[in-house]
Amino acid sequence: MRGFKNTLKPVNILPAEAEELVHRATMKILREHGVVFEDERALDLFRKAGLRVDDAEQRVFFAPEFVEQQIKKAPDRFTIHARHPGNDVLIGGDSLVFAPVSGPPFVVDREGGRRDGTLKDQNDLVRLSEVLDVMHHGCPEVACKDLPVETRHHDILYHQIRLSAKRMIGDAWSALRARDHIDMMAIVFGGRERILDRPVLTGIINSNSPLRYDSNMAEGLIEYAAAGQVNIITPFIMAGATSPVTLAAAVAQQNAECLSAIVLAETVRPGAPVMYGSFLTGLEMRTGAPAFGRPEAALGILSSAQMARRYRLPCRAGGVLTNSKLPDAQAGVEKMMMLWPILLGGVHYVLHGAGWLDGGLTASFEAMVLDAEMLEMLPRFFAGVPVDDESLALDVIAHVGAGGHFLGEEHTRRHFKTEFYFPNLADTEAFEAWAKKGSKDSFARAGERWKKLLATYQEPVLDPAIDEALRDFLARRKREIEATAD
Amino acid sequence: MRGFKNTLKPVNILPAEAEELVHRATMKILREHGVVFEDERALDLFRKAGLRVDDAEQRVFFAPEFVEQQIKKAPDRFTIHARHPGNDVLIGGDSLVFAPVSGPPFVVDREGGRRDGTLKDQNDLVRLSEVLDVMHHGCPEVACKDLPVETRHHDILYHQIRLSAKRMIGDAWSALRARDHIDMMAIVFGGRERILDRPVLTGIINSNSPLRYDSNMAEGLIEYAAAGQVNIITPFIMAGATSPVTLAAAVAQQNAECLSAIVLAETVRPGAPVMYGSFLTGLEMRTGAPAFGRPEAALGILSSAQMARRYRLPCRAGGVLTNSKLPDAQAGVEKMMMLWPILLGGVHYVLHGAGWLDGGLTASFEAMVLDAEMLEMLPRFFAGVPVDDESLALDVIAHVGAGGHFLGEEHTRRHFKTEFYFPNLADTEAFEAWAKKGSKDSFARAGERWKKLLATYQEPVLDPAIDEALRDFLARRKREIEATAD
Repeated sequence: MRGFKNTLKPVNILPAEAEELVHRATMKILREHGVVFEDERALDLFRKAGLRVDDAEQRVFFAPEFVEQQIKKAPDRFTIHARHPGNDVLIGGDSLVFAPVSGPPFVVDREGGRRDGTLKDQNDLVRLSEVLDVMHHGCPEVACKDLPVETRHHDILYHQIRLSAKRMIGDAWSALRARDHIDMMAIVFGGRERILDRPVLTGIINSNSPLRYDSNMAEGLIEYAAAGQVNIITPFIMAGATSPVTLAAAVAQQNAECLSAIVLAETVRPGAPVMYGSFLTGLEMRTGAPAFGRPEAALGILSSAQMARRYRLPCRAGGVLTNSKLPDAQAGVEKMMMLWPILLGGVHYVLHGAGWLDGGLTASFEAMVLDAEMLEMLPRFFAGVPVDDESLALDVIAHVGAGGHFLGEEHTRRHFKTEFYFPNLADTEAFEAWAKKGSKDSFARAGERWKKLLATYQEPVLDPAIDEALRDFLARRKREIEATAD
Repeated sequence: MRGFKNTLKPVNILPAEAEELVHRATMKILREHGVVFEDERALDLFRKAGLRVDDAEQRVFFAPEFVEQQIKKAPDRFTIHARHPGNDVLIGGDSLVFAPVSGPPFVVDREGGRRDGTLKDQNDLVRLSEVLDVMHHGCPEVACKDLPVETRHHDILYHQIRLSAKRMIGDAWSALRARDHIDMMAIVFGGRERILDRPVLTGIINSNSPLRYDSNMAEGLIEYAAAGQVNIITPFIMAGATSPVTLAAAVAQQNAECLSAIVLAETVRPGAPVMYGSFLTGLEMRTGAPAFGRPEAALGILSSAQMARRYRLPCRAGGVLTNSKLPDAQAGVEKMMMLWPILLGGVHYVLHGAGWLDGGLTASFEAMVLDAEMLEMLPRFFAGVPVDDESLALDVIAHVGAGGHFLGEEHTRRHFKTEFYFPNLADTEAFEAWAKKGSKDSFARAGERWKKLLATYQEPVLDPAIDEALRDFLARRKREIEATAD
């Protein structure tokens, strides 16, 4: 089982009364304003469940009691399964799971510069993620612009399955893609019924904020829920643009969007695994970009995670995000401004946990190893300060005496490897030794490290029969898709 | 009054039983092992207070009841005064005060490179700190190697007084230096009796760990306490070298060193203002350097602040520290790994809050503005998520409707300036615009910004009579010191 055990007690950034006010505002939005689902299957499901639907506007009005009843059906924790149980991840409880960057159109590395993503980059990112222990779940993903868009989702997942023994992030952005991905994973795991109660895929469902889901998203959600796969419901709230500028309203609106889609998933299949997702941030009013690594985003993570906790739903929030174009000081600061609220908020699942740059437009090989190093600090932090006779070491203090030193003590040798965290990239050398090497900053060192790590990659074994079945499936689907296009 | 209001509830990283065990271990060290004070004045004070002293070893054994009784005399909060009350700082309670880097032998900027500190650099750093609002207290300090060491403390403080209207960090590293600084500030404030109950100076007192204070430190402490000035008692614990490698022992030993010196201060003058200081970190076993920005340091800050809280003592801990030689990604990450525990621990005073690089060996102009930007995020974070009708904005959500946007709303215009934090250096530009400018990372942008800021500096007014009195004092002291040296 991969993932960290988060030993921090979650911080409630909203006082209890404020949390209650946000909840009530959410219910008022759901009841009086409703949410638009531009999808007939979804509207039918809601109608059959007894909800009032405005057909012309495709708007669903949610009775608060129904919302509360449905979201209670969602599990508060579940396991996402891998071929090897060692790569399973627990979502919920005190588990904290990091997945790599997903979605950028561009890739960048120090030598090659910024360019359109290709299958080669995609596969190299998967390989790099595979050798990084702290990438607990999922494969990185970039847009492979050298592949035809109609069947791109086939190639990406097929290569992920071949190259990675960790778990996959699926594609739930249309019924077609969702079904294809579910079919492919069914082949890998021996049939759809084998994965129905043992989820193996996660799909990101983004609302079209404010208060609207388009047909592709609703369809993907329905397919995933029906197949027992995980929907990560993530409204993309950019306060000031897709929600009111004030954080309280942004959280309430996000909450309404999130809960309405969770209600849909639980209506499709009671007990369907979902995550309460948040990507809440503010708009940078001077450039029109979503602003990451800011205090608003930190507060967004904390308050979103608190609302998820209220409803006993596993929480996806934040990400190790930055607007910086390079892994520079700004990137380091902004990413840590996202990471700490994740730890403090009791967030369970973090997408874009490594490799993200430039507001999500670019996946960076150097950022992947730099961010991994950031996450590698966490196990030592979570281990805390154990206090007992051995760690208090009063006999060692007495033995060394005033003015001595502890370097040669057996107690030091016994404990230093577990007491201290040893970074791979961060340096503590003397200035002179460092300068002699050509004064490399951590970005330059990361440029060397990712290549060294990539060289250690070994492809996991895939059963040839599964491989053949996958290839057959993809060939058939390709023909079908081409036929439809004609 | 300068300083942030920290709205976070302090995190107790040690469970109550663990905190109690650390306290008991501390008392056992103080009672059975004792602390060495290589200073006859200090030993006399302890003897007169009834403590057992081993004369040959200069070791003092502390009865726990006496320790508890004395530390209760220390105020849990106090104000450090400035000529202008607007620059006063409150130490304690929910106040959080940042001071700039102090002590490096070297300075660096992008253009000039790394070099020995000089009075010109020192003064430029003071000017830069003066225009940074988030530098709440004190002046940066570097070793001015172009000045004679005997009277360097005169020149540094004199120029600080001339160049800065914020408060000064004094020098308490010997009786002579402490007295000179107290005398100088007495001139500025109109007499020693005027500052006796209104502290204007802070002195850093470092133990010579393990469990030892040298004469200079003890003398400086006694002078400051007698004059009503602030002693910041800061053992320099490098776990594995100057304390046992395990954090529990490091905290207990630090606690013993800290409390013993606070007992001395309160014995000199009951009610003397002190801070419980911590600079606890681990040793990087591969290079022998103290390691900053690591999980061990984060835990050190949290557990030290918790012990200070137990004794109701204002806490100095951490610093915006890094081992990196440049303001790069490593620096950003390591500094944030120090900053968040400071916020969470309820630390009251942060020395080295901006400008520190290279394990404290170098003061950086660029790091000063980059770190200031990091701190500038905090007021927005501390403001939290206010929840009321105006911020929930249900009418605005209803007005915009599903699928609309909030950019043009009056509500957005009304709130965006306070709802969002606007950075000066961090960029969110489109990649193309950014690349056209020459692809500048945040370090390069900081290299431009510090010069622009420095150009805005204006020297505060100093009463000519005070200036003349200071000059007379310094001339006389210079003659005396030269006569002593002959």
